[in-house]
Amino acid sequence: MSVRVKVLPDGRTIIVPAGRTLADALEQNGLRLSLYCGQRGICGKCFVEIISGEIGEPGAIERRFIEARKLPPRSRMSCRYRPGADAVVRIPDASRLPEMPVFRTGIERRIVPDPAVRTIAVSFSESGPTADAALLDRIRNGFRREKPLIPAGLLREIARRAAAQSSPSPFWTAVLYDGRELLDFVPGDVSGSGLGLAVDLGTTTMVAELVELDTGRVLGSASSINPQTSFGADVVSRITAGYMNPDRVGDMRDAVTAGLNALIEELAGSSRREAEGIHEAVIAGNTAMNHLFLGLPVATLAVAPFAGLFSSLPPLAASESGLRIHPRGKVTIAPNIRSFVGGDISAGLAATDLEHRQGNHLFLDLGTNGEIVLKTGPDFVAASTAAGPAFEGMSISCGMLALPGAVHKAGIRGEEISVRTIGGAPARGVCGTGLIDLISLALRKGLLTRGGHILNPSKSIPFAGTLALTQKDVREVQLAAAAVKTGMRLLLSSAGLEAAELDGLIVAGAFGNELNIAHATSIGLLPRIDRNKVQFVGNSSLAGARALLLSRAERARCEKLAARVRHVNLAGDEEFQRIYIESLELAPWP
Amino acid sequence: MSVRVKVLPDGRTIIVPAGRTLADALEQNGLRLSLYCGQRGICGKCFVEIISGEIGEPGAIERRFIEARKLPPRSRMSCRYRPGADAVVRIPDASRLPEMPVFRTGIERRIVPDPAVRTIAVSFSESGPTADAALLDRIRNGFRREKPLIPAGLLREIARRAAAQSSPSPFWTAVLYDGRELLDFVPGDVSGSGLGLAVDLGTTTMVAELVELDTGRVLGSASSINPQTSFGADVVSRITAGYMNPDRVGDMRDAVTAGLNALIEELAGSSRREAEGIHEAVIAGNTAMNHLFLGLPVATLAVAPFAGLFSSLPPLAASESGLRIHPRGKVTIAPNIRSFVGGDISAGLAATDLEHRQGNHLFLDLGTNGEIVLKTGPDFVAASTAAGPAFEGMSISCGMLALPGAVHKAGIRGEEISVRTIGGAPARGVCGTGLIDLISLALRKGLLTRGGHILNPSKSIPFAGTLALTQKDVREVQLAAAAVKTGMRLLLSSAGLEAAELDGLIVAGAFGNELNIAHATSIGLLPRIDRNKVQFVGNSSLAGARALLLSRAERARCEKLAARVRHVNLAGDEEFQRIYIESLELAPWP
Repeated sequence: MSVRVKVLPDGRTIIVPAGRTLADALEQNGLRLSLYCGQRGICGKCFVEIISGEIGEPGAIERRFIEARKLPPRSRMSCRYRPGADAVVRIPDASRLPEMPVFRTGIERRIVPDPAVRTIAVSFSESGPTADAALLDRIRNGFRREKPLIPAGLLREIARRAAAQSSPSPFWTAVLYDGRELLDFVPGDVSGSGLGLAVDLGTTTMVAELVELDTGRVLGSASSINPQTSFGADVVSRITAGYMNPDRVGDMRDAVTAGLNALIEELAGSSRREAEGIHEAVIAGNTAMNHLFLGLPVATLAVAPFAGLFSSLPPLAASESGLRIHPRGKVTIAPNIRSFVGGDISAGLAATDLEHRQGNHLFLDLGTNGEIVLKTGPDFVAASTAAGPAFEGMSISCGMLALPGAVHKAGIRGEEISVRTIGGAPARGVCGTGLIDLISLALRKGLLTRGGHILNPSKSIPFAGTLALTQKDVREVQLAAAAVKTGMRLLLSSAGLEAAELDGLIVAGAFGNELNIAHATSIGLLPRIDRNKVQFVGNSSLAGARALLLSRAERARCEKLAARVRHVNLAGDEEFQRIYIESLELAPWP
Repeated sequence: MSVRVKVLPDGRTIIVPAGRTLADALEQNGLRLSLYCGQRGICGKCFVEIISGEIGEPGAIERRFIEARKLPPRSRMSCRYRPGADAVVRIPDASRLPEMPVFRTGIERRIVPDPAVRTIAVSFSESGPTADAALLDRIRNGFRREKPLIPAGLLREIARRAAAQSSPSPFWTAVLYDGRELLDFVPGDVSGSGLGLAVDLGTTTMVAELVELDTGRVLGSASSINPQTSFGADVVSRITAGYMNPDRVGDMRDAVTAGLNALIEELAGSSRREAEGIHEAVIAGNTAMNHLFLGLPVATLAVAPFAGLFSSLPPLAASESGLRIHPRGKVTIAPNIRSFVGGDISAGLAATDLEHRQGNHLFLDLGTNGEIVLKTGPDFVAASTAAGPAFEGMSISCGMLALPGAVHKAGIRGEEISVRTIGGAPARGVCGTGLIDLISLALRKGLLTRGGHILNPSKSIPFAGTLALTQKDVREVQLAAAAVKTGMRLLLSSAGLEAAELDGLIVAGAFGNELNIAHATSIGLLPRIDRNKVQFVGNSSLAGARALLLSRAERARCEKLAARVRHVNLAGDEEFQRIYIESLELAPWP
């Protein structure tokens, strides 16, 4: 025995077997509803309107939601509604699973929210079997099946909050982690208010976003220089500092948590939210950065075979992490792949969905380290190169981050090099993309040899007012570009591939969407490849952190992929020295 | 295809299906081996000697154990050994599951150790798939299946310990909680060294035992007055203190944790162990005591319907509990039954295995509260009475705990009352059992009326040197005995039972094994019942805490039983006042 249910506005008719819930039948037919509380029948997110047919017996919780939220009177929660006869139902938009974009530019990709942290309105006041039942048992009963774990410290707070109420709330809001641990329990219905923090923890810069967990909406973003910079500009110098003096690890940890806490405070202030309302943070950083964030010794990263201490970690208690979000909140570290190829890259692979692309693809993330992942069919291989911070505008005499006033584009107008600055502000310095443009143009105009030698007597390349690149600046770019180029060439040759055989090149990181492909190709930073195959995705580490924050499915997939990627230690390759020296030439790929 | 294996010294021959491990086949045939690591094949506790037959291919770990522990060369771990042909094996005693007594006197009961905390020697040095594998992944691999969770803080410590080794240990010892969480990981094979703490947290006195988790051996016990006594002598006065001034709850929490920490220090010192070596504590206390130990508000225990905040709780982190054992250790609270009937009683029921007794049984735990559980067939019903601390020798002018010098027995010699003291020391006061004897003898000798009135002009009952009971002392005993008697009578009558229909009466608590049944019956503290049916078990709360500490199975069973026991609020019973007043008479049951 089964019944037919017509679903509006879709217009489809589905078959519901006798005794099955409408939610199950809709899922089975690919009509995805928000089953936010895991079909416990308590969150009130999967209401449908019964246009015609029997509405059955709504439960007390359903009736309370209909009244409190002013829903149409013939509404039922689809996870409770078992149609007994043919019916017509309407699914309101609010009950459908939304999709949210992962990138704002570059790659088009949307994910379905499936956050680990969920805020659910539950009704527990009358659910005790008898009056002398313990508070904790009454709360647990409010969750129906799969009772969550409730720590003793929270129980203390709940007891105080319950005692402080002059009249008992009909609803309380549970903040549930992964469906099985209660992070908080507050009076009133504030469901849907969950906040998360996505962090790209870079060697040079760090960026944080405050995100609404249920909608994926980014409420604000903030960035700053990683305060660990004062311990060393690049990964190697910080690892060395921690290796030579293990106490420095604690100092670097304190520095970065203080910096992140300042970003959290800034975001909370600008978005008018409480930092305590953030129940989870996902941190995507390279291996050294996440070791230092956790205060883990970096000695093993200082010497061959450069092994990290962990790849994936269970979520940490926020209080243990030092981040000033909700003290019972969680901090999740995007999994390291291996050695220096860290969570920023696993997050980037998740964000770009590299796994599901057909053919051969190269993923290049240019930051202070240049990380490269080559996908050939089902196989992934990754390597890391020490590019240094030049592409982020650091270690360059007049370099700066991509902020207003930074020269970010350069071209030839008549005989002269002409430049454009971010925001059209007066030129204050040069950022990564401008630097590539300038070097490429200087080569073309014969101001510079392929060997990187500045020919004019002043030994400088002036480009805006008093701003000029020095011989040392050119050397920095040469070394950085050579490192990245060598890495790409070695990975490709290990797979027996030519650059021309690539189906796609994804460029993430420092350059955003601004890099001039022709200029980058002319100095060999990018391989010679059809420009339609090149995609710029900007900060894929941040986008990936957000994807992991918003979706448990993405998180699980990322962890699996990270464990699958093969790693090669470039410095251990016999060819490395030869190709590196060859790559120092500012010239297109052979 | 299966093979026949003769098992020595048992002499039985069992059938082992092809491909199955010997461990599985032994289990199936009721021959219980120590499968300590959950058949991961890493702990080396289930070795058998292959007397004849093929020994197969011992793994690297097996060979290492055979060498390090000087086992017979033809030894195999039974969880790895899959006999391919008929064989004869010998099971050494060390590989069998031991049994350990729950009580030292009173009830004969033994349990099989199944501790939540296990110390397992693992070999992780060579288990990394490649040299650059992360330390955490290499450790996890050492566990084969069911990789445990490893907190980041511990990872930090392990990295430091590994770095500090001049030569790598072939074995490390993992301290594993419930098979799924790593509490510690230290170089060297110190498996079997796990320690636990069993605590009876009484209103007046608290007792702690230091226990070897793998053998059940009690290394030492220590006791003291509960320092909360300064906030009130009984449960009600402490609840009132916490209710009137919630800050007092924190003060009482601090007092009791300080007191327990002193006991821990004393036990560690006398047993020459480190307090940090204790990885789990099980606390059995009444509802008010465990609420105050956790710093939970007691307001709901102060007013009807006297509901606690929790029945069972997940294990707490030791660091959160305030107990100075291993900071990542666990503190487990024996589950409360309901209202004032707490974890001391659920532990007592576990220790005495009341669940498996046939017929009608009354369990009576006399402490500062008198708790009563009646078992009739499969049904359990419990109640609590406020006896006060008289039976523990408190609130009596010359009362004292059952320590050397306490008058613990009294009889008639000629015309005189003669007394005996604990340890034969000069009489310093009277403890609970002595008190019952003295009151009963005074009645018999006509010094006292059934109404509790002292007849002689001095209004005192002298019994040793200058020691004497006052009129007020007699009133205290009268009130305490009446409370307990009323509780028993009401529970029995609610089940439609007469005392004579009881198949057993278990008396736990203050009186130990010393109570004179005839004397107790003469004043109505015990019902009139065949004395062979009475069993004294002493501190069943402590024995139960130890049983829960040593066995996860007992723990699970206790939790289930606690949730099943029905609770009655005696004060809510209409008959209560009438029977209470009737019971004030110092006389046998009607």
